[in-house]
Formats: sequence, structure tokens, C-alpha cells
Amino acid sequence: MNPIYPLRDRMVSRVQRENRQGHKGLVVWMTGLSGSGKSTLALALERKLFDEHCQGILLDGDNLRNGISRGLGFREEDRLENVRRVAETARLFLDAGWVAICSLISPSRSMRDLARSIVGNDDFLEVFVDAPVEVCASRDVKGLYRMAKEGALSGFTGLDAPYEPPGHPDLHLPTSELSPEECLDLLYQEVVRRIGPSPSLQDKKASC
Amino acid sequence: MNPIYPLRDRMVSRVQRENRQGHKGLVVWMTGLSGSGKSTLALALERKLFDEHCQGILLDGDNLRNGISRGLGFREEDRLENVRRVAETARLFLDAGWVAICSLISPSRSMRDLARSIVGNDDFLEVFVDAPVEVCASRDVKGLYRMAKEGALSGFTGLDAPYEPPGHPDLHLPTSELSPEECLDLLYQEVVRRIGPSPSLQDKKASC
Repeated sequence: MNPIYPLRDRMVSRVQRENRQGHKGLVVWMTGLSGSGKSTLALALERKLFDEHCQGILLDGDNLRNGISRGLGFREEDRLENVRRVAETARLFLDAGWVAICSLISPSRSMRDLARSIVGNDDFLEVFVDAPVEVCASRDVKGLYRMAKEGALSGFTGLDAPYEPPGHPDLHLPTSELSPEECLDLLYQEVVRRIGPSPSLQDKKASC
Repeated sequence: MNPIYPLRDRMVSRVQRENRQGHKGLVVWMTGLSGSGKSTLALALERKLFDEHCQGILLDGDNLRNGISRGLGFREEDRLENVRRVAETARLFLDAGWVAICSLISPSRSMRDLARSIVGNDDFLEVFVDAPVEVCASRDVKGLYRMAKEGALSGFTGLDAPYEPPGHPDLHLPTSELSPEECLDLLYQEVVRRIGPSPSLQDKKASC
């Protein structure tokens, strides 16, 4: 017996919110190695959307590990549960009409497929933030590669834990070949293409 | 060694979002027995805020049990973890400048204190949606009281599990004494008092 009675159909709907704000919601799922540039691009996209008067929010994997995912570690099942909670959180913002920018390594295809299944295929933009592990390790913004090589971190993705590159990402950003500005431009254009003006607003000036 | 590097200080800030939209964020935490009227009032408040061009979202306990809290049951520790995740989710919406309306029984003071500590005291509005258990059982909108009395549900709050009324709620709504319209009016007025125009907008027309 499941004493759960969802209220979704009586809440203010996503479409109502989208129509008011002039663009659709979307989940932008940024996957890649530590140091590949996910957070930098995610921060820049959030700022750009704000500057363009669109509703966007960064759901950063590290931030959420201090919040809804507190207590989860880095074992396979914990990482999967972390991905699940981030995806569920993103879906809440999506239902509110927002662009939820999720930035987390999410190293395996099964994890990203889980996220896609929770969000829904039509609303999910998988962005592969791609740089060779040697480049990421040389950047080492957080000092994590050094720590991993010194043995202070184990199960570090790209070193002693696998990263499965997306086979067919919706967008591929090779951050070791393009500048941050070029990557942001490609990312923003793809997001705008997806969130476009909502149907009822196509004859008005959209927000972005 | 904790390989977690939050990005909060580089994200679009809550104040920036609040200044743009013209009102502050808030977490409205509605506690009370099943059948006390929490969901009805929460839905009405969400709709009212939308109609008044404020950013408000209902985070309903039952909805979230199908999302971020999937897999949790109704034992004490599961309920506490559910409250924790709802509060963390509410804080994300608060950080985005929204009014997050949380509707869940949250039967014990320790649970509500946990939620308050996660959200922060200044941004937390505890609303006691109060009706005697006999009244709730006679309404029995979801048929849960009948099921509990027939033994199909155990640990049902108000019957065979305790509900600790808030000692000093920020707002007390006796739904068996006031009409739904009167309760909504009291609730909305208190919310507006708390979210008021943000400081930079006090000389402009606020959204609500």
C-alpha cells in the first residue's frame, strides 16, 4: 500500500510558466573529466542566461554533495545515487520552466542514461566537455590530480577509475582545442536553439 | 580528504535574482496532520503567487517521494532524511530567489528544526496547518485514515504515530475554524510581508 498522492496536475504547470517567461525549460547535462572545463562553462552559461533575462541555474555536483547528496561517497552505487538526485532536482527546475545546468563528472553511460530517463529525452541536452586526461591533469585547478597521484585520493576518474566518453553527445566541446569563449558560444547557441520562444510567444519579442 | 570544491560564490547570486524579480525568496514550511489542509493551501498559495507575478513553487512531500526521496520509507530515520532532502531542495529554490512552499507532515519538532537549520532562520516561515485529528479523519480526502484504521497502514501520524504541534509557529492556521479563503488570505499576507520588495526596488513598483 503506497500512501502517496502526487499533486502535479493541480500545480502551476510548466507550460504556464514557460509562456510567461518566454522560453522553454531544459536540462543541460555537462559531463567530462575533472579539469575538463565543466564548471567554468557552466558558470559562464548561467551568467549569460541571466544577462539575457532567461531563467537558468547551475546545479553543480560539488555544491549538491554538500546538500541533497550529503553523506554519499564515491563508490559506484553512491555516484549513481548522486546522479539520480541531481537529475531529480534538475527535473524540479525544469518543471518550473528553468534551464538547469548540471555539472558533474557522471563518468559512465549508465549514469547519464539514468539522468536522461529521469529528465525525459526531449528536455535533455548532453554536453561532452572533452579534454585529454593529460591536459586536465596539467591544468589541475583543484589540485586533485596531484593528490590522486600521491595516493591521497583513490578511484579518481581518468586515473584509476574509468570515464566512458559519450558515444553521441548532443554537443561536443573539445576544450583543449577551442577557447573558453568559443565553447561558451557553441553551448549558448545550442541552448537557445532548444529553449527558443515558447509557442504562444512566437509572435512577440522573446526574452532570448 | 574531501575533494569537493563548491562554486557558490561565483554563481549568479540570490540577491541579483531577487533584485531583478522584485521580491525576496522564502521557504514556507507547512506542517500538520494528513488531512489538515496543507496541500490545499499550498496549491492555492502557489497559484496566488503566480497570479501576482511572484516566483513560487510547491514542493509537495508526496511528489518528492516519487523523486529525490524515492526509496525512503516512513520509519523515523527515513522521515528525517526525507525532511532533510526537501529542505535542501527548498534551499536551492531559495538561492534562486523563489518562494519554496514545502508541504509535508514533518511530525516532530526535531524534523522541523532540522529544516529550519538547513534553510536558515531568517528565510524560514513555519506554518502550522492545524485541525483536530477527528476533523482530519472525517475529511479523509485520501482515504488514508480509513486504511490506517483497517490496519492497512501502520505508523500513521495522529493515530499510531505522534504529531508534535509546533510550540511557536510563525503562523497558525486553524483550518477547522477558518474558511480556506480566510486561511489563504492570512498565509498570503504573511508571505508578502516577508518577501516584500527587495531593497533596490523599494522605489519602483514591486511585483507583489
